[in-house]
Amino acid sequence: MRINEHFAKLPAGYLFPEIGRRVRAYQAAHPDANVIRLGIGDVTEPLVPAITSAMHAAVDEMGKRETFRGYGPEQGYDFLVEAIREHDYKARGVDIAADEIFVSDGSKCDSGNVQELFALGAKIAVTDPVYPVYVDSNVMAGRTAAAGADGRYPGFVYLVGTEANGFVPEPPAEPVDVVYLCSPNNPTGTVMTRAQLERWVAWARRTDSLIVFDAAYESYIADPELPRSIYEIEGAQSHAIELRSFSKRAGFTGVRCAFMVIPKAVTGRDPSGRYVPLNALWSRRHSTKFNGASYIVQRGAAAAYSPAGLAETKAQIAFYMENAKLMREGLGAAGFTVFGGVHAPYLWLRTNGGMASWDFFDRLLERAQVVGTPGAGFGPAGEGYFRLSAFNSRANVVEAIARIRAAFA
Amino acid sequence: MRINEHFAKLPAGYLFPEIGRRVRAYQAAHPDANVIRLGIGDVTEPLVPAITSAMHAAVDEMGKRETFRGYGPEQGYDFLVEAIREHDYKARGVDIAADEIFVSDGSKCDSGNVQELFALGAKIAVTDPVYPVYVDSNVMAGRTAAAGADGRYPGFVYLVGTEANGFVPEPPAEPVDVVYLCSPNNPTGTVMTRAQLERWVAWARRTDSLIVFDAAYESYIADPELPRSIYEIEGAQSHAIELRSFSKRAGFTGVRCAFMVIPKAVTGRDPSGRYVPLNALWSRRHSTKFNGASYIVQRGAAAAYSPAGLAETKAQIAFYMENAKLMREGLGAAGFTVFGGVHAPYLWLRTNGGMASWDFFDRLLERAQVVGTPGAGFGPAGEGYFRLSAFNSRANVVEAIARIRAAFA
Repeated sequence: MRINEHFAKLPAGYLFPEIGRRVRAYQAAHPDANVIRLGIGDVTEPLVPAITSAMHAAVDEMGKRETFRGYGPEQGYDFLVEAIREHDYKARGVDIAADEIFVSDGSKCDSGNVQELFALGAKIAVTDPVYPVYVDSNVMAGRTAAAGADGRYPGFVYLVGTEANGFVPEPPAEPVDVVYLCSPNNPTGTVMTRAQLERWVAWARRTDSLIVFDAAYESYIADPELPRSIYEIEGAQSHAIELRSFSKRAGFTGVRCAFMVIPKAVTGRDPSGRYVPLNALWSRRHSTKFNGASYIVQRGAAAAYSPAGLAETKAQIAFYMENAKLMREGLGAAGFTVFGGVHAPYLWLRTNGGMASWDFFDRLLERAQVVGTPGAGFGPAGEGYFRLSAFNSRANVVEAIARIRAAFA
Repeated sequence: MRINEHFAKLPAGYLFPEIGRRVRAYQAAHPDANVIRLGIGDVTEPLVPAITSAMHAAVDEMGKRETFRGYGPEQGYDFLVEAIREHDYKARGVDIAADEIFVSDGSKCDSGNVQELFALGAKIAVTDPVYPVYVDSNVMAGRTAAAGADGRYPGFVYLVGTEANGFVPEPPAEPVDVVYLCSPNNPTGTVMTRAQLERWVAWARRTDSLIVFDAAYESYIADPELPRSIYEIEGAQSHAIELRSFSKRAGFTGVRCAFMVIPKAVTGRDPSGRYVPLNALWSRRHSTKFNGASYIVQRGAAAAYSPAGLAETKAQIAFYMENAKLMREGLGAAGFTVFGGVHAPYLWLRTNGGMASWDFFDRLLERAQVVGTPGAGFGPAGEGYFRLSAFNSRANVVEAIARIRAAFA
């Protein structure tokens, strides 16, 4: 049996397992240490009552013959799709048709699977630093050579985020087929302005390229003037796919629900040069390899749009953003230069003295018993930076900041 | 943007949408007709109390800060993995390690995604008739040319199931990398004996090929002497992957939970000839593109293994199998030659007079207002056959059989 040889191009050591290994080693050596984890971007607040009520009701329905549901529509139930259309798009002046929305079991799946739509020879652009799934899924499909000594895969076009460009790179000069953008950004916590997004959409239209726009953190945008969807930019509906998730917006990291929007105007070219709508291709992909998200989960997700669900999840997001504010202030007081954390649950700090990000990881763990994520784990351009997440209890956040101030100020 | 051109190799008309179209047309012309659907293989009985209780408890846990769960382990929670090890394997004399089990959101996903492990040039063998996902997922990945006039894709090795071989083909003479087997079989409802499975395992070991063994219907096997897992065959642990599902065994078609077993002894060769364990590759795939099945769903699945859950789901399966028995008898009395339906919820009948299976579909709908699935939808060798499923209420099954007898006997 001949295997897919492209898996071997991925480095053996993986970011989060390596973090886990170092934390376990530290705890074994310091069994009394109270380690506070601000590393992985996982929510900590419970599901809100509007959502648990809806899920209880759905479980009851599934337990009665008259209301039992078997296979649902692969694209998602109308009750959820309509809530998405109404609240996420119509309310922002954007018209998305029901059959342009594909409900799934998570944005990690969507962002990993979307590359199945692209030609094997398609040129892919990614930012650096970057959410690793965009990179790894394309490497596994065979679109690159093995990584070089600099940690970069020959075959990708890298768009470098720096302090100078506010971690929002400009469009590439060279031709690419697809670019992955994430705003509010994981890992830097920065957000794209309307003007920046407009430049990207204009570029995609001019060069006939596709933007995969990951908006998994859009609900953390505080300023109503900032676009939450790429479709708020005129012309985007022909050149952008958008990903959204309930993970960070409604505490669904363990519940699993997300969706992808593919407007019918988005096309790609086949080898004969003919334009083919990606919506039809994804519909075929979805119905061939996926059987819909769980009914109970979809009922829970729809409840996030009820008046109570909206109020309750909004309060939860405000809670996390107050954490982020306290962290920004405290890290600043400790002398760190901090980015993000205003329209995103992530803070991106410059390590002190240009320290390597894994060395800073060790130092933060030793001096403050706080776990974060080394910037280098998100790409070479993340070296010298460090990600902290605002997902934790208030008490833990306050304690972590106090320790960091004591250790570094 | 250049698209994946292989999607275009799939035929535009898809089996179940075409069935839906014909049923809608019939109902529009006959608004008073009471159409009974025995087509798609979807369960109709509600979730059992042991499962709904566990899911309610899990929803409550998710609603409290102290018991809330965010991201779970990508491979599945220990409580479910241990139940699987114990009840599905140890109880049958098979030792499977915890890290050889990968919990997922469905066997359709698993059977569609598993081909990502194989080289693009890997030679794939499928049976004919066949569950279409094995075929379509490999076509979309680019392992074949476009289908010929006979409906077959150049590039596959086809293993034809016939009445003469009891719809269980023998291993191919030519070399292949991978073969997909399904037992109890969808669509034919036939089951592989120990002797047949032994021949397949011996072949896989001799030729160093991989068997992807889809056992989604194993809980319908009535005879305790028949193997429920391929690992009950000596030597299979080095040459077989097994797929299992809660869909038909616990009514989870709308809930979504399944798992795949990849023993660590299963290997494939990379281009340099080195043997690589598939378990490690799938673990990387799972953690890159998947974020675990829903916690609530996994709690429900684990409850299917509790004493109450086992008793309740067993009764449900017995109910469906009594339907199958009534259908076998009634169809026989109506003069049909029937296969399957003894160790599987599917019956596979020979159309009368060698009628084309879509013509028989129309005739059955017109004469008896019963919907089934044309055998031709599962491959050219399904022509002249027809699939009926035993998933329905007793009243509907009795009524459907009475109508078929009146129309055809």
